[in-house]
Amino acid sequence: MRRGVLVSVTVLGVAAILTAGALLVYRGALAPQPVRPGTVPPGTYDPVVWGKIYPLEYDSWRQTADPRSANKSKYKKGWDTDGVVYDKLSEFPYLALLSRGWGMGIEYNEPRGHYYMVTDQLEIDPSRVKPGGVCLTCKSPYAQKLLDENGPAFLKMPYLEAVDKIPAAHRTLGVACIDCHDNQTMDLKVSRWTIRNALAALGKTSPTRQEMRSIVCGQCHCTYIITRDEEMKPTDVVFPWRGSRWGDISVENIIREIQASSSNLEWTQEVTGFKLGFIRHPEFEFYTRDSVHWQAGVACADCHMPYRRVGTSKISDHNVMSPLKDDMRACLQCHTEKPDDLRRQVLAIQDRTVALMNRAGYAAATVAKLFELAHREQAKGKVFDQKLYDQAKECYLQAFYRVVFLAAENSVGFHNPSEAGRIAGDALAFAGRAEGLLRQTLTAAGVQVPEVVNLELGKYLNDRGTKKLNFRPEQEIKDPTGLQDVFLPPAAKGLAVKK
Amino acid sequence: MRRGVLVSVTVLGVAAILTAGALLVYRGALAPQPVRPGTVPPGTYDPVVWGKIYPLEYDSWRQTADPRSANKSKYKKGWDTDGVVYDKLSEFPYLALLSRGWGMGIEYNEPRGHYYMVTDQLEIDPSRVKPGGVCLTCKSPYAQKLLDENGPAFLKMPYLEAVDKIPAAHRTLGVACIDCHDNQTMDLKVSRWTIRNALAALGKTSPTRQEMRSIVCGQCHCTYIITRDEEMKPTDVVFPWRGSRWGDISVENIIREIQASSSNLEWTQEVTGFKLGFIRHPEFEFYTRDSVHWQAGVACADCHMPYRRVGTSKISDHNVMSPLKDDMRACLQCHTEKPDDLRRQVLAIQDRTVALMNRAGYAAATVAKLFELAHREQAKGKVFDQKLYDQAKECYLQAFYRVVFLAAENSVGFHNPSEAGRIAGDALAFAGRAEGLLRQTLTAAGVQVPEVVNLELGKYLNDRGTKKLNFRPEQEIKDPTGLQDVFLPPAAKGLAVKK
Repeated sequence: MRRGVLVSVTVLGVAAILTAGALLVYRGALAPQPVRPGTVPPGTYDPVVWGKIYPLEYDSWRQTADPRSANKSKYKKGWDTDGVVYDKLSEFPYLALLSRGWGMGIEYNEPRGHYYMVTDQLEIDPSRVKPGGVCLTCKSPYAQKLLDENGPAFLKMPYLEAVDKIPAAHRTLGVACIDCHDNQTMDLKVSRWTIRNALAALGKTSPTRQEMRSIVCGQCHCTYIITRDEEMKPTDVVFPWRGSRWGDISVENIIREIQASSSNLEWTQEVTGFKLGFIRHPEFEFYTRDSVHWQAGVACADCHMPYRRVGTSKISDHNVMSPLKDDMRACLQCHTEKPDDLRRQVLAIQDRTVALMNRAGYAAATVAKLFELAHREQAKGKVFDQKLYDQAKECYLQAFYRVVFLAAENSVGFHNPSEAGRIAGDALAFAGRAEGLLRQTLTAAGVQVPEVVNLELGKYLNDRGTKKLNFRPEQEIKDPTGLQDVFLPPAAKGLAVKK
Repeated sequence: MRRGVLVSVTVLGVAAILTAGALLVYRGALAPQPVRPGTVPPGTYDPVVWGKIYPLEYDSWRQTADPRSANKSKYKKGWDTDGVVYDKLSEFPYLALLSRGWGMGIEYNEPRGHYYMVTDQLEIDPSRVKPGGVCLTCKSPYAQKLLDENGPAFLKMPYLEAVDKIPAAHRTLGVACIDCHDNQTMDLKVSRWTIRNALAALGKTSPTRQEMRSIVCGQCHCTYIITRDEEMKPTDVVFPWRGSRWGDISVENIIREIQASSSNLEWTQEVTGFKLGFIRHPEFEFYTRDSVHWQAGVACADCHMPYRRVGTSKISDHNVMSPLKDDMRACLQCHTEKPDDLRRQVLAIQDRTVALMNRAGYAAATVAKLFELAHREQAKGKVFDQKLYDQAKECYLQAFYRVVFLAAENSVGFHNPSEAGRIAGDALAFAGRAEGLLRQTLTAAGVQVPEVVNLELGKYLNDRGTKKLNFRPEQEIKDPTGLQDVFLPPAAKGLAVKK
C-alpha cells in the first residue's frame, strides 16, 4: 500500500510538472495577456460584472474601501487606520469664518477613499447637499443617465429624491469602471457632459492616451460652478475653463470666469454679506499648469495608479491613493532616492505651502472682519469713501478665492510647488492691500480700528449644523515655520474650545 | 627609389601601429590618469603655474573671460555676447528706491564671469568699494594673505591702496586655483577666515568631498555682513550663520543675526532714514535649505561645473556658468527630457519668482514712501501712535530683507522654487501688514494718505553716481503674470526716462 501511494504521488508529481511546463510555454507564446472569459455588455454599471473579466483591477478598486496606514501623510489623514474624522475647519480655523453662510462652513471633512463618495454625502450635514440632485454629478456613475432621463429637473430635485432614482443596489456606488472605460476596448473615456463641455472650451478635441490618463481623473478632480437661477436653484454644473488653454488654466482665469456672471455666485458669506462663488479641489487645473511633473509627461495615473505586479500580471493599481501613504512606491518608478528622502522633500514643500496658506487665510479672515466692522458702522450711519471701499472689496475677493483654491487643492502644494507659492503670495498681496485700504477708509470715517482684529473663530467653529460639531483643537494645523503668531497673536484668533 | 619609399612607409606604418598598440596597453593599465609634468609648489597664486600641470582645467577656467551666447537666459544676461551692461536697478526699479543711500543704490549690474571679479570692482562707481580693503575679501585670492600681513588695518584701508598691496601681475586676478585646491593633492579646500568661522558656527567640522563641492562655491556665494565700528569703518566680514544648522540657514535666521547687533547695520536708507543691514547673493544658504536638488545629493559643481570630455580626458568644467547658457548640458547628466522642455520648466519657476518678487518689492517700496510721508509729517509736528508705528517699522524691515534676499540670489528662484515662494509670500505679508498699520496711524493723526502712493522712482533712477547713470526702460523686467498693475498703476511708479 505504501508503495502504491508512492507511485501515485510520483505519477501526479510528473504530471503536474509537465502541465506546469506546458502552461509556461503556452503563456510565453501569448505574452502576459491573460485570456478574458467574455466581454462587458454595453451600459453595464455593475462593477461586479466588469470584475469577473478584470478581477485584479476590480480587487484593487475595491480596496479604496480600506483605510490607509496612519501617520504616513502629515497633512492628509482623512482615511487612515486611526479612525479619526479629520475636520478641515478645525485644521484650518480661518476656513470656518471664510465659509460661514452655507454647508462648506458647517461640515467639511478630509475625504475618505473613492469607495465612500456617495456614502460621505449621505452621512454629512444635509446643508452640504442642499442644491439637490446636482450634487450627484461627480459622485454617481448614473449622473449622466439620470440627467438624460429626467432633464434639468434632476439637478434641482431634492438630494435624497435624486438618490432614490439610482437603482437600489447601486445607490452608494461611487466612481466605477464605466466612468472611465469603454466596455469593449477598455480604452479610457469620459462620461459626463461637464468635462465634455469643458474640454471643448479648451479646444482639446483629440487627447492622446497619456493625456487621457489625466483627463479621466480631471473629470471630477477639478473645480466647478453650480450655476443658479434667480431663486438660487441649480441650473447646471460647469467647469470655469472658458478662455483658458490646455496646460494653462490659471487661478486668475478661474476667478474671472466665476465673476463673469451673477449666476455663478452660489452663496452669501455671513461675515461680509458678500455674494460669492467658490473653488473646489482644482487638482487638474493646478497640476497641469507648468508643474515639474506635468512638464515631464507624468499623468495623474502614473503617481496615483502606479503599475503593480499581481502574480504574473502587471496592472494599473485602482486602489487610488497618495504616494505618501504607499511608501512612495509610485515615485520610485522614476526616482532613485530612498523613500525617506523623497518623503522629506514632499513635506518640505507642503510645510512651505501650509505656512503661506495659513498666513493668507488669516489675512483674508482679518479683512472679512474689517468688512463686518465697516458694515456695522455703515448701519449706524457712517459714510465711507466709495472708491476705496470698492477697491478693498475687489482685493478681498481676489484674496478669498486664492485661499479657497489652495485649501481645496488636495496636494498641499506638492502638485505644483512654485505655483502654490505664487498663488499664496498673491493672496497675501491682495489681502494686505485690502486691509490697508480698509483701515484707512474706516479711520477716515471716524471709526476706531483695533490694531489687532479679533477673529472670534469660536463663534464659527462651535455648534455647527445638525451634529453640533465643535472645534477640535488637537486637529489644528499650525504654521510649520512658526512665524504666524507675528501676524496674528494666538489670542486674536478667538478660538473657544467647547467640551 | 619608389620601392625604397614603399618599404620605408611600410616599416614606419608597422612601427606606428605597434607603438600605438603599446601605448593603448600602457594607458589601459594605468587607466585614464595622465602623467603630470611636476607638482605645484606651496603658496602658488599664479594660475599659469597650475595650468602647466592641469592645462585642461586651466583653459576652461580662462574661458570665464568669454561672453556667453545671448538670449539663452531670460533673467540673467550679465555677460552675454550682446555686450550690454544690464543695470539691475533698471531691471527692478523698486530696488533703486530701497537701496538709495549707499553704493548699492548707485550702480548695481548683473555680474560678468569669474574672470572679471576685481575688474568689475575697479570699473564700478567708487561708492561700491567705499568700505575699503574689506571689499577684496572674496574677490582676490590674496585676501587672507593680506589680512595676515597687515592685520585688521587691511580691512579699513582705502580700496585702491589695498589693491596696490596685491603683487602687480595679479591685481585683477579673480578666483584662482589656490582658492579651492590643495597644491599637492588637488583636494578641495577653503581659503578664507570667513567661511572657516561660518562652518564652525554651523558645527560642520568634517565635510565630505561631495559637500566640499558646494562649500568651495559657498565661501563666496553667500551673504555676509561687513561689521562696523562707531565711525562706520569695517571691522570684519562675517557670515550670519550663527544659530543655524547645516542644510538649514533660513532667511529668518539671517535677519535675526543681522538685527542682533548695531554693528551689523551698514548703511542708512535715504527714503526712510532707517539704519539697515543688507543681504548679498545668498546662493549657498538658499540652495542648501531643503531644495529638491540639494536633497537629491546634487552639489553646486554638478550643475555649474559639469564633467566635460576634452580629448581622452574628462574634467570638471571650470568655465562656471548657468546651465541655461550651456543648453542645459549639466541637467542632461540626470534628466532625460529634451533641453527645451527643461528650459521651459526653469522659466516657469523663474517667471513665478519674478512675479512675486516684483509684487513684494513694490509693496515694500510703497511702505518706504509712507514712512517718508510719516517722517515729513512728524517734522511738522504730527504725533503718531508709537506702538503702531514700531510694529509697522518691524514689519517693513522683515519685508525689506526678504526682498533684498530674493533680488540678490542669482537663480531667480530656481535653486529652491518653493522656498522662493515662501520668502516672497512672507515679504508680501509683512509689507501688507506694515502698510495697513501705517495707513491707519497716519490717518488717525490727521494725515491725508493718498490711495495710490507715487513712488517717484525717476528720482532714484536717474543721474546716479559719477557716471550719471539713468533709468534704461528697455531693461525693466515687468511682472510676467501681468498682475502687478492691479496693485500699483504704472503711472504711480513715477518712472521718468531721461534721454
